[in-house]
Amino acid sequence: MSEILFDRIALIGIGLIGSSIARDIKKLGLARQVVISTRSAETLKRAEELELGTAYTTSAAEAVEDADLVIVSVPVGASEAVARQIAPHLKAGAIVTDVGSTKASVIAQMAPHMPENVHFIPGHPLAGTEKSGPDAGFSGLFKGRWCIFTPLPDTDRAALDRLSAFWKALGSMIDEMDPQHHDKVLAIVSHLPHIIAYNIVGTADDLETVTESEVIKYSASGFRDFTRLAASDPTMWRDVCLHNKDAILEMLARFSEDLAYLQRAIRWGEGDKLFELFSRTRTIRRSIVQAGQDVDVPDFGRHALDK
Amino acid sequence: MSEILFDRIALIGIGLIGSSIARDIKKLGLARQVVISTRSAETLKRAEELELGTAYTTSAAEAVEDADLVIVSVPVGASEAVARQIAPHLKAGAIVTDVGSTKASVIAQMAPHMPENVHFIPGHPLAGTEKSGPDAGFSGLFKGRWCIFTPLPDTDRAALDRLSAFWKALGSMIDEMDPQHHDKVLAIVSHLPHIIAYNIVGTADDLETVTESEVIKYSASGFRDFTRLAASDPTMWRDVCLHNKDAILEMLARFSEDLAYLQRAIRWGEGDKLFELFSRTRTIRRSIVQAGQDVDVPDFGRHALDK
Repeated sequence: MSEILFDRIALIGIGLIGSSIARDIKKLGLARQVVISTRSAETLKRAEELELGTAYTTSAAEAVEDADLVIVSVPVGASEAVARQIAPHLKAGAIVTDVGSTKASVIAQMAPHMPENVHFIPGHPLAGTEKSGPDAGFSGLFKGRWCIFTPLPDTDRAALDRLSAFWKALGSMIDEMDPQHHDKVLAIVSHLPHIIAYNIVGTADDLETVTESEVIKYSASGFRDFTRLAASDPTMWRDVCLHNKDAILEMLARFSEDLAYLQRAIRWGEGDKLFELFSRTRTIRRSIVQAGQDVDVPDFGRHALDK
Repeated sequence: MSEILFDRIALIGIGLIGSSIARDIKKLGLARQVVISTRSAETLKRAEELELGTAYTTSAAEAVEDADLVIVSVPVGASEAVARQIAPHLKAGAIVTDVGSTKASVIAQMAPHMPENVHFIPGHPLAGTEKSGPDAGFSGLFKGRWCIFTPLPDTDRAALDRLSAFWKALGSMIDEMDPQHHDKVLAIVSHLPHIIAYNIVGTADDLETVTESEVIKYSASGFRDFTRLAASDPTMWRDVCLHNKDAILEMLARFSEDLAYLQRAIRWGEGDKLFELFSRTRTIRRSIVQAGQDVDVPDFGRHALDK
């Protein structure tokens, strides 16, 4: 058991991320009280059944009363509404953070509402799976993963250090960058891959010449890798697309340009160009495995899991 | 140990697929003799060190002498050269098959060279990993996977049954379809996913505003799933692109059209369209897991593997 880092923590939103945080807090004993809030009475009931906190309410305003740390884990499009609700009820000196996948938009939505005597520190833990909801969370989700802060210019370093200590207790590694750069980085490492995955699964679903049952039956030859990302939470990803539009459109334009080049090489039988690209991309995979960011077993170790 | 199905088997090509077949034959005792042939003296030496067969030669012509079953496991672009080399040396009544990812092209390359007294049965086991070479193979690779035959109109059913029995012994499930349909199905379930994966990894590699080390560091948020496919054998995939051109170009055109629609929805903030697509794709994932074509653990069970 670690030391108590905050007396009272309020979790606004209790999906995959919120409920994983709750499980870690409980397991590690990082807070005396954990108040859980979500708009849906049904989800709240489930959180209570799972014993994820010490108190439960559908009112975000009520949840943040007296809280030393407030963690907002909602689809990014709901950030402003939450900020408006909680602002008048925040305790002086409280730290307010979030876990949203886009940062410039979340700051634009929340910062104007934050009282001056509160530390608002936008954050983004780079962790998750394709599952969603309070049952999908698990302790250890953030272990060995990055948590990126995009502090505002006037951020109090002591508050940032306290919040860092919290994420480190969950096993995360900490990084800092400015919100605009964060949004560009995430557009390529996360948003574009999800959009492309959703798109290819949609294309396959719409074919007339190949049946859906054939696509499913033979999916192990490559297609299934995309379906994992394309099974992610639709609300979360709709909001990401709407709230990181510029960076995503830039990455999409580049991707499409490169794809047109590749398509042309296929049409004209330019084997050298294809071979050059197909060789170059191997190196990146190797670096990712070396950096400990993926498992070093063929086929994601599915064969090992089968046994 | 199963029964001996063929007295003498010749394996032309000993990469991931060929060496996995060799390991299964040995483990299950499916043949008395296994002659291994590959053009590269170095690879042949490695196959001998791994004791994958009973005889080794760099001459495909020599390898097929007296063989009852010949399995060609080379990049599809090399099919015609192999067919020319082996044709004059094939034993009357021998079964010749291949494992190529494209079928119409392989048939066009090989069939004209096959002697009349030989059973040429094109095949495609839908199995593999992102690794390549004789060390990458393993026994059990074909277990629970589909093997698709695209028999010619005059194919002898008895010969097809013998070949089916062989693949079933390796644990495969058997399907039959015509070569053109096979090429369309594979274009969507395998070729397009690989091309898209290669492309996005290339796009990420070329960015100026986001560094390569950032891409690697934060790859767990989606990008890394694509890098597995993009680490596949460049020669094999160059040949697939060149030898299933029409079907691939058709699928690429549809994919790009759908992506343009999605891009437009992002630009104009049409959340409903995004939500509709992002919800629809979840269903397919569920069907794939239900069909036993992927593991039912979040994040491909990477967390389980970490422990």
